[in-house]
Amino acid sequence: MRIGAPGAEKPAVRAGENDYVDVSDLVKDFDEEFFGSGGIERIAGPVAERIAAGDVRLIGGQRIGAPIARPHQILCIGLNYSDHAAETGQAAPDEPILFTKSPNTLVGPDDDVRLPRGSVKTDWEVELGIVIGRRTSYLESVDAAAAAIAGYVLVNDVSERAFQMERGGQWVKGKSAETFNPAGPWLATPDEIPDVNDLAMWLDVNGERRQTGNTRTMIFDPFFVVHYLSQFLVLEPGDLINTGTPPGVGLGLKPPVYLRAGDVMTLGIEHLGSARQQVVGPR
Amino acid sequence: MRIGAPGAEKPAVRAGENDYVDVSDLVKDFDEEFFGSGGIERIAGPVAERIAAGDVRLIGGQRIGAPIARPHQILCIGLNYSDHAAETGQAAPDEPILFTKSPNTLVGPDDDVRLPRGSVKTDWEVELGIVIGRRTSYLESVDAAAAAIAGYVLVNDVSERAFQMERGGQWVKGKSAETFNPAGPWLATPDEIPDVNDLAMWLDVNGERRQTGNTRTMIFDPFFVVHYLSQFLVLEPGDLINTGTPPGVGLGLKPPVYLRAGDVMTLGIEHLGSARQQVVGPR
Repeated sequence: MRIGAPGAEKPAVRAGENDYVDVSDLVKDFDEEFFGSGGIERIAGPVAERIAAGDVRLIGGQRIGAPIARPHQILCIGLNYSDHAAETGQAAPDEPILFTKSPNTLVGPDDDVRLPRGSVKTDWEVELGIVIGRRTSYLESVDAAAAAIAGYVLVNDVSERAFQMERGGQWVKGKSAETFNPAGPWLATPDEIPDVNDLAMWLDVNGERRQTGNTRTMIFDPFFVVHYLSQFLVLEPGDLINTGTPPGVGLGLKPPVYLRAGDVMTLGIEHLGSARQQVVGPR
Repeated sequence: MRIGAPGAEKPAVRAGENDYVDVSDLVKDFDEEFFGSGGIERIAGPVAERIAAGDVRLIGGQRIGAPIARPHQILCIGLNYSDHAAETGQAAPDEPILFTKSPNTLVGPDDDVRLPRGSVKTDWEVELGIVIGRRTSYLESVDAAAAAIAGYVLVNDVSERAFQMERGGQWVKGKSAETFNPAGPWLATPDEIPDVNDLAMWLDVNGERRQTGNTRTMIFDPFFVVHYLSQFLVLEPGDLINTGTPPGVGLGLKPPVYLRAGDVMTLGIEHLGSARQQVVGPR
């Protein structure tokens, strides 16, 4: 986890429902250098010792930041759940659709999501996020992808549909507004998850269930995605990959429903915690 | 400029055709922190003193790196020259088309360009690059964009056309292979360029002229582009914006012509220097 004010988060390791181990004396941040230098393995021993010694702190009312520092890149897979592709009126893709978000969209799991100026179609997307653990290029097999993954996070791939699809071609334009990538509360390492291909996920807006899904209905699973992307570009340690959303986005409702200032999104993925974002008006 | 081995470039200021002032004692790197903290203004005085004192060094045979550190994001404007849009068989866009490249594609102006594995359609694109000078969001006018620009660089927006257009939707997939964004040799600050909207540009492959253009035929000029992008996302200091390519790319030739290992691209933009990239085979 990363706990503290925006821009001043301290690296921490979750020790239980309500407490954590401070590792800010061991780690500068959960960033490219940390993941790329075996940081997770390096802090495992000291963290276990501190937990055994009772050297834990209460999370209490502290702000929780995104569990990783701003990454080198945020890659996203589009239409990766067959039933979501159907609800948007598009065919299931033959191979992963790749788009990106600006890395500075990353915010904490409970931070506000700000509507961009002129937005009339801001939408939600609960997603499983993959965090890359090492510099990765041309993986030889799908099986080799597991070793390239540092862990998984809960993300909300917030999207402005008019900017995404009605303003000239590429999707990034509707994906990159400030605050459009809440992530967290924590990164779970692969050993903490029984089966990444069987994780229940959900998203509510104002307490009404909008998305219900499970990673088992993904068209391209996390290992396929990481192997596939590595054939086209170099993944850096700490890179975030949003793997697509299950059905139930606002765009897919009849008639479509979009976010307004004052709305509250709550979302979660099994083993990855839950998050709560209030929608606020434009700056 | 940045001079030295890949990953170990030292920041420098060009003092003449063949020599430079070393500023590595004043500046860690030409990165987000540098541009965002008024770095260009801060080093102007010391650089002038060093030049007056004759404290300059010969570039000689040293490698020249990209003139900026790996940026937070590389944004690209597509089909921004009306005659290039025509050669690709597409209509001139009503508003800027935005796509991205992975930031780790950035290499030096004379570094090798490596064909991705399986590539049969790797193509060239000489472009004017804009480097952002401050955190920028919701600029109030096109005129306000000038103050957000740190300078301009020569770039080659190398593109794999099959990956870009035949592999499922979004362009980023064909834009992000390792070495696909040579930049430099130098960044020119706006005061060093008489008129950014009247810069001649060219690109040769194996000595044969392929692209001839001038920024005056851009559909959306640099100020329009920066103002426009600032309405959709937050630009960070040091961000790079590739502003589109003039006619003459391989895709537009009849029949199309693509790069092979051993080919040499030479390219240049008035006031921004020239570059030379040899194409090498896949890793």
